[in-house]
Amino acid sequence: MTKPSSFQEIILKLQDFWASHGCLITQPYYTQVGAGTMNPATFLRVLGPEPWNVAYVEPSVRPDDGRYGENPNRFQLHTQYQVILKPDPGNPQELYLESLKALGIDPRQHDIRFVEDNWEQPAISAWGLGWEVWLDGQEITQFTYFQQMGGVALDPVSVEITYGLERILIALNNAKAIWNEEYGAGVTYGEIRRQEEFEHSKYYFETADVERVRAMYDLFSAEADACLAQGLIVPAHDYVLKCSHCFNILDTRGAISVAERQAFFRRIRELAKGVAVSYGEQRMKLEYPLLKESQKSKVESRSLPATFDLRPSTFLLEIGVEELPASDVDSAYAAVSTRVPTLLKELNLTHGDICFFTTPRRIVVSIDSLSPNQPDREDLVKGPPADKAFDKDGKPTQAALGFAKKNNLDPATLEAREIDGGKYVAAVVKQKGRPTPEVLVDALPKLVESIKFEKSMRWNDSGIAFSRPIRWYVALLGDMVIPFEYAGVTSGNISRGLRPYGSPDITIPSADKYFDIIREAGILLDKEERKASIVEQVNQAAALLGGEAIIEEGLLNEVTNLIEMPTAVMGGFNEEFLSLPRDVLISVMKKHQRYFPVRKGRAQHAAPLLPNFIAIRNGDDIHIDTVREGNEHVLGARFADANFFVREDVKLKLEEYRPKLSTLTFHTKLGSMLDKSDRILKLGAEVGAMLGFKGVDEIKPLGRAVYLAKADLVTQMVTEMTSLQGIIGGEYALRSGESAEVALAISEQYQTVPQSKVGVALALADRIDSLVGLFGAGLAPTGAKDPFGLRRAAIGVVQPLIEHGMDFDLALIVQKSVKTQPLEVTADAQKQILEFIAGRLKVVLGDMGFKHDVIEAVLAAQSNNPAGTVHAVKQLSAWVGREDWSTILDGFARCVRITRDQKTQFTIDEKVFVESEEKQLHQALSVERSTFKDVDEFLSTIAKLIPSITAFFDKVLVMAEDAKVKENRLGLLQKIAGLANGVADLGKLEGF
Amino acid sequence: MTKPSSFQEIILKLQDFWASHGCLITQPYYTQVGAGTMNPATFLRVLGPEPWNVAYVEPSVRPDDGRYGENPNRFQLHTQYQVILKPDPGNPQELYLESLKALGIDPRQHDIRFVEDNWEQPAISAWGLGWEVWLDGQEITQFTYFQQMGGVALDPVSVEITYGLERILIALNNAKAIWNEEYGAGVTYGEIRRQEEFEHSKYYFETADVERVRAMYDLFSAEADACLAQGLIVPAHDYVLKCSHCFNILDTRGAISVAERQAFFRRIRELAKGVAVSYGEQRMKLEYPLLKESQKSKVESRSLPATFDLRPSTFLLEIGVEELPASDVDSAYAAVSTRVPTLLKELNLTHGDICFFTTPRRIVVSIDSLSPNQPDREDLVKGPPADKAFDKDGKPTQAALGFAKKNNLDPATLEAREIDGGKYVAAVVKQKGRPTPEVLVDALPKLVESIKFEKSMRWNDSGIAFSRPIRWYVALLGDMVIPFEYAGVTSGNISRGLRPYGSPDITIPSADKYFDIIREAGILLDKEERKASIVEQVNQAAALLGGEAIIEEGLLNEVTNLIEMPTAVMGGFNEEFLSLPRDVLISVMKKHQRYFPVRKGRAQHAAPLLPNFIAIRNGDDIHIDTVREGNEHVLGARFADANFFVREDVKLKLEEYRPKLSTLTFHTKLGSMLDKSDRILKLGAEVGAMLGFKGVDEIKPLGRAVYLAKADLVTQMVTEMTSLQGIIGGEYALRSGESAEVALAISEQYQTVPQSKVGVALALADRIDSLVGLFGAGLAPTGAKDPFGLRRAAIGVVQPLIEHGMDFDLALIVQKSVKTQPLEVTADAQKQILEFIAGRLKVVLGDMGFKHDVIEAVLAAQSNNPAGTVHAVKQLSAWVGREDWSTILDGFARCVRITRDQKTQFTIDEKVFVESEEKQLHQALSVERSTFKDVDEFLSTIAKLIPSITAFFDKVLVMAEDAKVKENRLGLLQKIAGLANGVADLGKLEGF
Repeated sequence: MTKPSSFQEIILKLQDFWASHGCLITQPYYTQVGAGTMNPATFLRVLGPEPWNVAYVEPSVRPDDGRYGENPNRFQLHTQYQVILKPDPGNPQELYLESLKALGIDPRQHDIRFVEDNWEQPAISAWGLGWEVWLDGQEITQFTYFQQMGGVALDPVSVEITYGLERILIALNNAKAIWNEEYGAGVTYGEIRRQEEFEHSKYYFETADVERVRAMYDLFSAEADACLAQGLIVPAHDYVLKCSHCFNILDTRGAISVAERQAFFRRIRELAKGVAVSYGEQRMKLEYPLLKESQKSKVESRSLPATFDLRPSTFLLEIGVEELPASDVDSAYAAVSTRVPTLLKELNLTHGDICFFTTPRRIVVSIDSLSPNQPDREDLVKGPPADKAFDKDGKPTQAALGFAKKNNLDPATLEAREIDGGKYVAAVVKQKGRPTPEVLVDALPKLVESIKFEKSMRWNDSGIAFSRPIRWYVALLGDMVIPFEYAGVTSGNISRGLRPYGSPDITIPSADKYFDIIREAGILLDKEERKASIVEQVNQAAALLGGEAIIEEGLLNEVTNLIEMPTAVMGGFNEEFLSLPRDVLISVMKKHQRYFPVRKGRAQHAAPLLPNFIAIRNGDDIHIDTVREGNEHVLGARFADANFFVREDVKLKLEEYRPKLSTLTFHTKLGSMLDKSDRILKLGAEVGAMLGFKGVDEIKPLGRAVYLAKADLVTQMVTEMTSLQGIIGGEYALRSGESAEVALAISEQYQTVPQSKVGVALALADRIDSLVGLFGAGLAPTGAKDPFGLRRAAIGVVQPLIEHGMDFDLALIVQKSVKTQPLEVTADAQKQILEFIAGRLKVVLGDMGFKHDVIEAVLAAQSNNPAGTVHAVKQLSAWVGREDWSTILDGFARCVRITRDQKTQFTIDEKVFVESEEKQLHQALSVERSTFKDVDEFLSTIAKLIPSITAFFDKVLVMAEDAKVKENRLGLLQKIAGLANGVADLGKLEGF
Repeated sequence: MTKPSSFQEIILKLQDFWASHGCLITQPYYTQVGAGTMNPATFLRVLGPEPWNVAYVEPSVRPDDGRYGENPNRFQLHTQYQVILKPDPGNPQELYLESLKALGIDPRQHDIRFVEDNWEQPAISAWGLGWEVWLDGQEITQFTYFQQMGGVALDPVSVEITYGLERILIALNNAKAIWNEEYGAGVTYGEIRRQEEFEHSKYYFETADVERVRAMYDLFSAEADACLAQGLIVPAHDYVLKCSHCFNILDTRGAISVAERQAFFRRIRELAKGVAVSYGEQRMKLEYPLLKESQKSKVESRSLPATFDLRPSTFLLEIGVEELPASDVDSAYAAVSTRVPTLLKELNLTHGDICFFTTPRRIVVSIDSLSPNQPDREDLVKGPPADKAFDKDGKPTQAALGFAKKNNLDPATLEAREIDGGKYVAAVVKQKGRPTPEVLVDALPKLVESIKFEKSMRWNDSGIAFSRPIRWYVALLGDMVIPFEYAGVTSGNISRGLRPYGSPDITIPSADKYFDIIREAGILLDKEERKASIVEQVNQAAALLGGEAIIEEGLLNEVTNLIEMPTAVMGGFNEEFLSLPRDVLISVMKKHQRYFPVRKGRAQHAAPLLPNFIAIRNGDDIHIDTVREGNEHVLGARFADANFFVREDVKLKLEEYRPKLSTLTFHTKLGSMLDKSDRILKLGAEVGAMLGFKGVDEIKPLGRAVYLAKADLVTQMVTEMTSLQGIIGGEYALRSGESAEVALAISEQYQTVPQSKVGVALALADRIDSLVGLFGAGLAPTGAKDPFGLRRAAIGVVQPLIEHGMDFDLALIVQKSVKTQPLEVTADAQKQILEFIAGRLKVVLGDMGFKHDVIEAVLAAQSNNPAGTVHAVKQLSAWVGREDWSTILDGFARCVRITRDQKTQFTIDEKVFVESEEKQLHQALSVERSTFKDVDEFLSTIAKLIPSITAFFDKVLVMAEDAKVKENRLGLLQKIAGLANGVADLGKLEGF
């Protein structure tokens, strides 16, 4: 090992590195910021057209990352080194990797990875795409191409590189924790910062006075407004930062509810936008003083040779990109594999086999035996109509002459032909097939352009968007480069090797040599091959550990798309962490670290875990111990973090957290989460009764589960990993001595369809309360906006009732909920709520595959009991499928259609019947039920009546001249039509 | 010229320099601070015993230095480079000068000066001594030995070096202003910061909402308390900093009055102390982790040779110090010139001439023909009393034997002697005179110790205090070094040369060569010689300019004490600045820059100034143009600053500022300065009436002057240079078209004794209002504390009345003032006020040279009319001086003494008189007045009565047996004693 680095050496080296690469070196900001991004040297300067290259240290304050100095990796203050390169210099990743070398990090000895990171900061209306850079599993840098800042689209795009200096120090010194490493001048980092870390953590988590910090927030935001009104941009920005810090403190104190968070964000976002827009205007007014004459890099234009090889050749296209997100590796595959065959057809090029490969860094298309040119063609070109092409003397008119000239024909050869059923002058135009190279020069840019991604980004002045920047193309037909330019990059015959090998240039002499050369460079192009290799290595490793790897397809697919050369790395963690909830362990390993967990034995799915993991490195096994240690360190830190929370949390019983819900606002109009919790306690009892809960054995667990349901929201573990809400509650319920039934209900309350009956009841009470309360407060979703997730809540009402087949009266439960709300919920709002739920029900039914008209027919008559609705839809679907359906529907429809426009409901007087058929129909009707428990009963009845109905219409004239007779007949038919009420509106059905 | 430096290069070079000198390099603080001192890396780490060496950049925010980006030298944000060396490395000045060389500043090409700076920050209870470092007249660094921080005395002392980076950049590039200099990477400083500078200036001066910022202050200080209560030191400190920033904003907005300022300071100081004390306790608890084994520097002990030269020799002592403040150069002279002759006497050393010299860097004592040793001595030593020394047999007792043994005598030789009027055993002890070198070894440390200064400081672990650190001694007797150690420094024969020459070591081979060598080194030891040289050079320079230098003795003396080799530098400034008020120009040149201003012509004292100045450089005239340009730049910037204020100010008439006084709180209990101004307007009318102002011609100017008196307090010029209050008001009054009389009164209102009658009236009204209001609010001075300067106010009431001989009834004006106050002023408080003023009057009278008893006698009878009191004291003093005074006093005293204890006032009944002498006395009394306009009248009367009084006492027995006769006689004497009432209490006089 070399001499350990000190923290200040890292900083001084980075200052020197970036100063010598043309960056301005500035200072940290003078107010607390969550990240260097917030420093005006980034936030403001990335706006507008002026170039800007800057680097600075930024001690970044994130209250909720405070761990009292006990976690080796997380601190409320960590030190960023921020670099902005504007515009993109074309090789920012390479510059970055060089800077790591300047720090003493040799990529060959580590596993350095660019892992997708879609950076987004809604609070300042900013986003960008890029990566977390991982060093042996540890995130040491964020690397982002900014696309938008303060709501303003960026042009040019800035590259932001944000180093995490503490993590780099840990990695460089292969340390377990930061505290004993040198800060500088022989003093440790811990001596400089640990006590302070403890104090700030305590302040942010325990001491900060919520009311006072709220008051600060209000004052700051008012000052920000005042500054903006005066055009004082930086002062305004300073106050936005102060607002943001207050928000962070409040959040850490657990004083901000999900609902309230939106309001805070909205306010800060507005301010940030105001700052950004004003700054843009100011710079324009100042005429962009930093803007120099743009020296647009001249694209070197390569041209095709004068003559081409005339034999079919292999074609190869490699699009070289900066690391694609895992899902985009698949999207790119789908795009090219769909597009290329069609394209070849369109281009009239014959070919042999085509194959496609995608890796994080390349999109490859290879075409065997591509025809050297297009075939010659004869095209029939339609001219003017024959009668307008020749005058009465049969001589070509002016129109015909023009057509001939345009198509380069002798006017004398023009003749009329039958085309599309009319007579036209036409010309047969012969086209010589173009040589394939020429065709490709035009087609390839369009091919690249056709590859679309869910999210894409711009990076240079071409303004073109792609998943990540394109950095090279290899385009070879045989040994000939097909020259083209797209997105500011020109094609050639140089590919690049593996990242860990420094991405060396690799010359591809001809298309057919490509695959051998690439394989020799260590790159597994074929995804299936990479995947198989991973599975094999992971299973081997797990077997060595005496356990079984948990290989989930989603994770496997992702990992496969993150590397070009997989090598498994086995690692372990401290056994004490096994006492953490299993879900937490797995979630951290899979979600955060992309590791495969290992469980004991081979049989049981839910077997306990081993204190091990298997990671996949990109590269070979050189220095693999360093990689392992790094990964172990990271995982240890993450588990320590979770452990910290759980240890703190279980000092109290779950029950004891409940009162603290009062500090968490659900919504200002609807009170705290404790208020909500009290409401659903009442509503839960009603729900239980309606679902038929009986006796202490059923009712008691429900009451307890509802009572404790929300308590975990104020635990630190859930505050930290919101996605574990419920799961943690269930876990802590067990640890607090609650019954398994209660724990289960709590843990599954956020699943769309809880499996236990208690879970369903709890979920229903919760969701109904949210819907009724928020609609009542006038916060119904509008358009695409659904900030409170009410669509999901409504589906969560409908789906469990359907899946469990539970009859349930939504109208009734809404009424009950209304009574518990702290505000008036109008009748109108109640109607809206039920309609909104019905809307979701319709979507669910559609997703279940029922026909649209059947769904409509049932929903028109009933929607307040989703299980019943589904039952009806199923039955009606069966009827609609019957062979005699059209007869039944037709008969019934006649009754409906003829009475539909009558405004009066006529009474039936037997004595007024004239014809026997009408008497008979009346008779038949009178022996049947007039209300039905379901569609089957209803339609069986109708079916029985059909012969009588048919006879009736055959013989009886409804619209008799005698008004009395007529009205009596209409009354009879009205009665039949009315049988459908509350069952289904058959009028909505096809064929009605 | 070399390539210009960039701002970031300066920073990077300083980082490298101090990193390579063992400093930790840390980051700027994450909240707005006024100076790097406030960063916990200084504020906290200088506390306690642990070593600490650190360097960091600190962008420092001082709202009231904002100049909208228009001043070349002043900005609301300037960048400090802060270095802390703890403990003192012994050569911090030299390290600092080396760092300047690293930046490219060659001391030989500039005038680098260490100018006294007593740093004090009462808001955080911190102080230290040191210097501003001037580069060609420009302050580029503050250099301080911290003595106290947060109320805690520092041990060890820390050296703080604070570079002003903007000024260094300007100086390095010899630039006119900062804006066009390079920040880095080809971008100018102005581009980075000028727009922002404008915006922040506007925010701080115009936009910041006073109420909101006050609210922030309250919230921050409450949070600071909460943090302190939890022992969260750094979070508490953060909030103290935020409080401090709020205070600065409010101050810049002109929203804080002098009175209110105290309350703010007190609060912040308490918090800062709390932080400092808690931090001290915390570190102790942590057992001072950074404390290493102290390696006390072993003082190399030099010893005297075995044999000494026996001829008288020249003795030389040079105490080498870091630059002494100008006044301490004189104090040191006074100390050694007083002490050394006495010391030589005490040491019994004969000598020839002694001479003394002091410069900023050395204190020199030279003694001709110092005797090589003390003469031998015989001392008589007193033993036990004779009767206890011998038993009845005449044998020595145990006591006598002990005495003999102690004095090394043969007991047989003991005999009794008469000493001090008693008989004692005694011994004659012969002492051999010690060689002078040995005597000096003991005496010299004590000599250095005896040099005391008004303010002194500690710097190293000797704990010894001196004006500034002692760095060397030359101590030679002939060619022999007298070895001693004091304050951690040992003596030798090495002196040091001039600062601009790099303070080279200079070996002094023998004492008699010292003066020639030092002169050769360019140093003028003799103050008078330096002074004469300055006067000559300055006059020559002024003559060249065709004007006359304004050489004020105080400034001349100061400048003489700032240099060791004077060289005049002539410079000029832009003529446009001549339109600034003359007082402003002179004040800036003299007070801020120590320049000699130059006026036109030779005759008039108040002649207009020339746009020139004369500075005195320390050193020769090499590169003097650089020095001149630097000084011109600084002065230009200072004038630009004043100009900025005046230009802004005169946009409004003085009158228009008055309403703005409402934003300035005088004291929360007493309202705004506008309220005060309204009160003194009323009171001024009363004062005028009492002083006999009559007619429109007298009354109107008074009214106007009082009305406008305080308006200048809200002008920017006074906000910036508070010492110009009144003067600026007068100046602006003239510019606003007010009369000369009004302007004069306004301008002299803060002088202790205004010369104009209107000025006196205004001053009285102002001062009486302050006294009455603040006493009424319970804010009377206590002990040494006088935060509102009420002692000065009271003297300012007394002194003008005395000097102008104005009769004035203080009791009455206090009553009048009471009626205008917004709060009740109790009778008790009113009494206190008058007593307080009387107390000041007593001091004034004492200072005037009157005898204490005379003052007491008059004050006991009258004090509410100071002029009258003085009149009385003068007259009484004359009487006391008379030859017959004892007779007069005695006669009167007999009357007083015999009646003093009588509780009843007896009436006189002529018929009851028995003796003729009592009848005669009664007769004599009845023809005289019984009340007197002054002491003379009173005492003339008494003098006339003396014969009758004498006769009375000779013949009459006052205490007759007949009670009636007795009481009648007592009544007669009571009447005489009572004549003194309201004139003087003669009982207080000596000899009464």
